[in-house]
Amino acid sequence: MSELPLAPFKRIIKREGAKRVSEEAAETLRNEIEEHARQRAVESRKYAEHADRKTVQAEDVEASS
Amino acid sequence: MSELPLAPFKRIIKREGAKRVSEEAAETLRNEIEEHARQRAVESRKYAEHADRKTVQAEDVEASS
Repeated sequence: MSELPLAPFKRIIKREGAKRVSEEAAETLRNEIEEHARQRAVESRKYAEHADRKTVQAEDVEASS
Repeated sequence: MSELPLAPFKRIIKREGAKRVSEEAAETLRNEIEEHARQRAVESRKYAEHADRKTVQAEDVEASS
């Protein structure tokens, strides 16, 4: 179940110089990038909790890696 | 100039347990994730070129890191 739409990933790959992009390539990039975003989100939430805040702020995302 | 929409990043952060998410936090995650996607796209295109293909395929994205 994906949160991120597929079309932007096709565009990103094309803009970086690809002549054509397979559907599966865009899906693979989307899925791996989304997993990476989820990992960053978990880390960001931990940083916010560690600072005794209920709101995840930009500094928490920056601290995550 | 962003390709990826902001709303999914807010949802991803919330689903990973955050009670609230600042607008700047979602923007920071979106921007960093998009930059990461662009780097993967460049690598993927190089792998396709190296294999003498004009089409970026899933295996190229998998090879990129």
